[in-house]
Amino acid sequence: MCMKNQTKITAEPGRQELFITREFEAPPEMVFKAFTIPEWLAQWMLPAEQNMRVDFMDYKTGGSYRFILSNINGRDIGIFGVVHEVSAPERIIRTFEYEGLPERGHLALEKTVFETLPGERTKVTIQFICESVEYRDGLVNSGMEKHTSESHKKLDELLAKSNATN
Amino acid sequence: MCMKNQTKITAEPGRQELFITREFEAPPEMVFKAFTIPEWLAQWMLPAEQNMRVDFMDYKTGGSYRFILSNINGRDIGIFGVVHEVSAPERIIRTFEYEGLPERGHLALEKTVFETLPGERTKVTIQFICESVEYRDGLVNSGMEKHTSESHKKLDELLAKSNATN
Repeated sequence: MCMKNQTKITAEPGRQELFITREFEAPPEMVFKAFTIPEWLAQWMLPAEQNMRVDFMDYKTGGSYRFILSNINGRDIGIFGVVHEVSAPERIIRTFEYEGLPERGHLALEKTVFETLPGERTKVTIQFICESVEYRDGLVNSGMEKHTSESHKKLDELLAKSNATN
Repeated sequence: MCMKNQTKITAEPGRQELFITREFEAPPEMVFKAFTIPEWLAQWMLPAEQNMRVDFMDYKTGGSYRFILSNINGRDIGIFGVVHEVSAPERIIRTFEYEGLPERGHLALEKTVFETLPGERTKVTIQFICESVEYRDGLVNSGMEKHTSESHKKLDELLAKSNATN
């Protein structure tokens, strides 16, 4: 597996947004599948020791989804959102609410863009637009870079396997 | 009609968000209806000379909507979004995309909160979280305060009529 691809998180001080960028050794069509097919997503989306299952996932423009994270300090916690746009293999726009916060109604808007790179490779850029600077800083300080990096390594493995079987 | 209620737009320099605040002479349950029932919304949501119709409006958590503005420089233009949360009579969270932009995929996240004020009155606070400072500044500079103020005056009239018939 190629180890040169690093997950990078950019969070400019005082802004409400953050950017996650990562390159993958597979074409956009395949990376897009890994972001949109429930069985694929459940295999890589979370950090090393975390498990999740798909409660429902209607991943089309106008759809919605809910994932359930297992055993977060002894309980299961949902992630819910609505899907503003799915344009294969270019763009996914959705909302994202972690249901484990003390209060409901706090969320982010997430835009994921897939770019073709030479050599059957893909660059993924995720813009996470938060409801406040504090919300964003909370995400970044919760170990986001480590967790996202771990999940992207799982995605590397999944894409390598899928490339091998195609 | 009470003329003391002013539509106020707050857009701090360099931020991705803006806030619209307005008080209304009706209780939250009624103002909430005016924001969520298609026939009501179509009567007030736009500035003085602008007409719109509801293409579809499934205004529940996980739903979506599309309005069509008539004759914007000679053509009809849609507004599309997905509905992250509808909690009557407290909160509506949705995405908002104006389909008349040169490129698709540019949008905002909108949180509308309804607060009870003494004397059967309501304070509405709308947080509009934009994908960029430029997008937000574009909205503000497009005459947003004038347009929103005009539409809120229509809403004042609608609420006064509804109060009178209840």
